[in-house]
Amino acid sequence: MTEKLKVYGDSRSGNCYKIQMLCAELAIPYTWQEVDILAGESRTPQFLAMNPNGRVPLLALPDGTYLAESNAILCYLADSNALAGPGRFGRAQVLQWLFFEQYSHEPYIATSRFIIRYLGNPPERQADLESKKKGGYAALGVMERQLLNNAYMAGENFSIADIALFAYTHVSDEGGFDLANYPAIRAWIRTIERRPKFVAMTTV
Amino acid sequence: MTEKLKVYGDSRSGNCYKIQMLCAELAIPYTWQEVDILAGESRTPQFLAMNPNGRVPLLALPDGTYLAESNAILCYLADSNALAGPGRFGRAQVLQWLFFEQYSHEPYIATSRFIIRYLGNPPERQADLESKKKGGYAALGVMERQLLNNAYMAGENFSIADIALFAYTHVSDEGGFDLANYPAIRAWIRTIERRPKFVAMTTV
Repeated sequence: MTEKLKVYGDSRSGNCYKIQMLCAELAIPYTWQEVDILAGESRTPQFLAMNPNGRVPLLALPDGTYLAESNAILCYLADSNALAGPGRFGRAQVLQWLFFEQYSHEPYIATSRFIIRYLGNPPERQADLESKKKGGYAALGVMERQLLNNAYMAGENFSIADIALFAYTHVSDEGGFDLANYPAIRAWIRTIERRPKFVAMTTV
Repeated sequence: MTEKLKVYGDSRSGNCYKIQMLCAELAIPYTWQEVDILAGESRTPQFLAMNPNGRVPLLALPDGTYLAESNAILCYLADSNALAGPGRFGRAQVLQWLFFEQYSHEPYIATSRFIIRYLGNPPERQADLESKKKGGYAALGVMERQLLNNAYMAGENFSIADIALFAYTHVSDEGGFDLANYPAIRAWIRTIERRPKFVAMTTV
């Protein structure tokens, strides 16, 4: 098959940015199909036929199959590359941090950014926003502790766990989170931004 | 190494039950260390030294290393077994459903069960509980649609995606969810319960 991979994504979404980061890192060619989630484009009958869960990013393979869930797409694209982790236990450690990101980090930090930056920080969401502070700082605390003892999230080597956690952590200020007390996280962000093939997130 | 794997878990937790299911299925020997999360045993300094995120299940390997996150543990234990999915894309599809479970299913269905069954359905959590109805039924709707077209969650074969989603779905009534309108899910539950090595969840 010579046809390229196609990624359906919203450029403002950190979950979608993860795929851009990995494809740049591994020089994987793909086409990008912008999906405006605020305009409801991920909930149309056409989109739901591709992903019944109505979420981006969504990867379309040349053979007509689809793969959803940003971190599953990272695993698929990294495949047996070192970015997926070294060996059986190393890969499991990378997965541990990918599940941590989706369960303990994203629902607090990414969602706060969405409310503030894309919904315009409406008064009726202030209690919801406030309730996300504790969980968000708890996740940052777990990351800080890990990065005080390791160069990267899953150990001594850069992996897709770093890509997944970088996506929303590096813009956590847009969700109202202050990284002043997290020096190891700030150093890790600078390290990732200095990678030769680093691509910045689209700013809209 | 001849020493057995050790699993730290709370028997009432569906996330911990997943590990019991998989170990029974694959005849993996392990010891079980009960951790009472309601008594704060997953937040003690001793436990946080093993898992800074303070959650169960936690897998302890004979060499002294630890692995957290139920679905990462499933992947580690299944390794290259067929239960992890067939081939590169098959494994990615299994992962897609594992991430769906943790992001779109567990926070609604498992958390509702926890509030009702283990916190005693307190009045001050009623609004919280009500807010989880929509997301929980949305997740069940996605599962129903998948199971109308496939024997199992990730396709034609039983996999760790089924174990992960069975754990809380088969007790979703304890979280206030009614499966009457989800016949494909009910049939899938019966199919899994009839597996020769099936172990039931501990009822406390």
